Amino acid sequence: MGMSGIEDFREAALAAVRSAMEERRLGGFIITDLSTIRWLTGFSGSSARLLVTPSVCRLFTDFRYREQAEREVAVAETVVVQEGVAAELASGRHPLKGTVALQSDTVLWQDAKRFMEALANRCSLEPLAGFFNEFRMVKNPVELNLMQNAADISGKVLDAVVPMISERVSECDIATEISCLHRKFGGEKDSFDPIVAGGARSAMPHARPTGEQFREGALVVIDMGCMAGGYASDQTRTVALGRVPDEARRVYDIVREAQQLGIRSARCGMKARELDAVVRSFIAGHGYGEAFGHGLGHGIGLEVHEEPRISLKGEAVLQEGMVFTIEPGIYLEGRFGVRIEDTVVMEAGGARPLQRFTKELIEL
Amino acid sequence: MGMSGIEDFREAALAAVRSAMEERRLGGFIITDLSTIRWLTGFSGSSARLLVTPSVCRLFTDFRYREQAEREVAVAETVVVQEGVAAELASGRHPLKGTVALQSDTVLWQDAKRFMEALANRCSLEPLAGFFNEFRMVKNPVELNLMQNAADISGKVLDAVVPMISERVSECDIATEISCLHRKFGGEKDSFDPIVAGGARSAMPHARPTGEQFREGALVVIDMGCMAGGYASDQTRTVALGRVPDEARRVYDIVREAQQLGIRSARCGMKARELDAVVRSFIAGHGYGEAFGHGLGHGIGLEVHEEPRISLKGEAVLQEGMVFTIEPGIYLEGRFGVRIEDTVVMEAGGARPLQRFTKELIEL
Repeated sequence: MGMSGIEDFREAALAAVRSAMEERRLGGFIITDLSTIRWLTGFSGSSARLLVTPSVCRLFTDFRYREQAEREVAVAETVVVQEGVAAELASGRHPLKGTVALQSDTVLWQDAKRFMEALANRCSLEPLAGFFNEFRMVKNPVELNLMQNAADISGKVLDAVVPMISERVSECDIATEISCLHRKFGGEKDSFDPIVAGGARSAMPHARPTGEQFREGALVVIDMGCMAGGYASDQTRTVALGRVPDEARRVYDIVREAQQLGIRSARCGMKARELDAVVRSFIAGHGYGEAFGHGLGHGIGLEVHEEPRISLKGEAVLQEGMVFTIEPGIYLEGRFGVRIEDTVVMEAGGARPLQRFTKELIEL
Repeated sequence: MGMSGIEDFREAALAAVRSAMEERRLGGFIITDLSTIRWLTGFSGSSARLLVTPSVCRLFTDFRYREQAEREVAVAETVVVQEGVAAELASGRHPLKGTVALQSDTVLWQDAKRFMEALANRCSLEPLAGFFNEFRMVKNPVELNLMQNAADISGKVLDAVVPMISERVSECDIATEISCLHRKFGGEKDSFDPIVAGGARSAMPHARPTGEQFREGALVVIDMGCMAGGYASDQTRTVALGRVPDEARRVYDIVREAQQLGIRSARCGMKARELDAVVRSFIAGHGYGEAFGHGLGHGIGLEVHEEPRISLKGEAVLQEGMVFTIEPGIYLEGRFGVRIEDTVVMEAGGARPLQRFTKELIEL
């Protein structure tokens, strides 16, 4: 798909959304989260609301974004507002009637109250969470290209920073390089603050980089991603500085096998929690069940964390075109941790990783 | 204040919050926004709720942040929750009664509904917006030191990037350098995506950097800031590549004088909108009133945009210890724009800028 391809996609997505709205007997949808608005319209500014009804699709933004909205958005009309979208919707210029949905999982309580007050005489507002997940979970070919591109940028960054790890640099030094290189290699920014955690800190799944230098014999967890073309990448590798103790190597091998088992086991039609269970059982079978304290993975796209959640509770059914991470870890508090993560795309034949970086233990 | 100084401050802030709660006859406050939680407790993780009642102050977080909360937080007890804070609060282990406030301007509608359902039999929840503004607007000496440090980092970055502007580099190149240098000079990250806008794009107040190279005779607006020690910096300068047309120089001089007038005119006891009006009238007096389409400035602290808003509607009264930006601009669509911004701290004798970078027009 080229540029016209993406517009075709957006028209089709809007039709699908309208059809799902009709099934739920919704007279309208007030969309308040920017990533869903970007997905549906292409608008990438930081201030917008979108109204979808059977007859109109209108993007509300402020004067700062008029030019940008006109350039980016074809599927919706742009309306520039001054006094807030609730007042604009109450004006009578927009076809609101019956039950109108509002995203309860992305709108602030205060804003929900404003909409309810302003529209009390026009329609009845229904809180609705997660409505767009089923649409956004399955990526179209344009999105998959953008996601491969974001993954490739982070891959090049990992290639560049792993050889920099030594006893003369700190976690912060490497994290800074990651952030810089993400931009220099064409990303817009980090998709989350890079995690670079050496030695005992590698046992903290969300460690923040410190100014401490790496030590010989330490494992180093590097978890990083960028935004490029609006889409996120996410990948983790664990490397060793010099030779690490035998138990660390053993744990590394278990995590690596667990991660590869996760990739091999993913099948269209299975539930996300079933995939989580396969890998969790494998790790538990090696005696480290307690040391794997988070879900196996998460969907990724316009946001670095989105549906489907690949966890004990993940009820989503894996489908072709879904993109999610597979990232088992084993964390031994006060000692060391290992995590290996790829982002994979579900295809008819199974899960295909977007990353190519080796999973053999690198000993620097 | 040293480390014990900051703990003294937090104890005093908690006492002041409790006293204001008592005035409003609140039996408790469920605090949901992370920057207020950081301000009151020091906790810097990404998952937390805080309960303040007359008798307890409890921080709820998940297992990932247990260690960090124990290290960072002295003013509150830490409670690690698994099944969500609403369920934990409903358990009866926490003293909730009467009217309990919930921050309607930071809590999602969905989460507000969860709290209301879970606590329906225990207390009555009251939506309350902006309660902490009056406290957070006035910075203590520890905060002011951190903000000067963040400003100094951005100042060094500006020193380094201005000489890099030439016809051989693009807006994106300079934006990337800013992001990298913010980290290399000790910041945690950008406080917002840097704005680097040359030529006609300088007329867009929120332009995104493009890959286009700068041209001789263009004005370049650079608006940037970092986070350091949890606090934000924010500054803007406009520089010229070579000699710019006379009107651009004239507009530059008007904006520079307007900005200095803003700094000189700020007085404790005046309303924010009065300060905005002084500068706005000056610009209007030069015939560019229509071309200054945003507020004069905004408060800054743990967030890059916070209270007080220095705008036409700003009712806050300026007080010693407040920190805000003064950033007039003139934007001539399709031609060029100029903005000059300092962050200032209100002192008894007037406003003192945290920035030292020259405001003379630099012609590169």
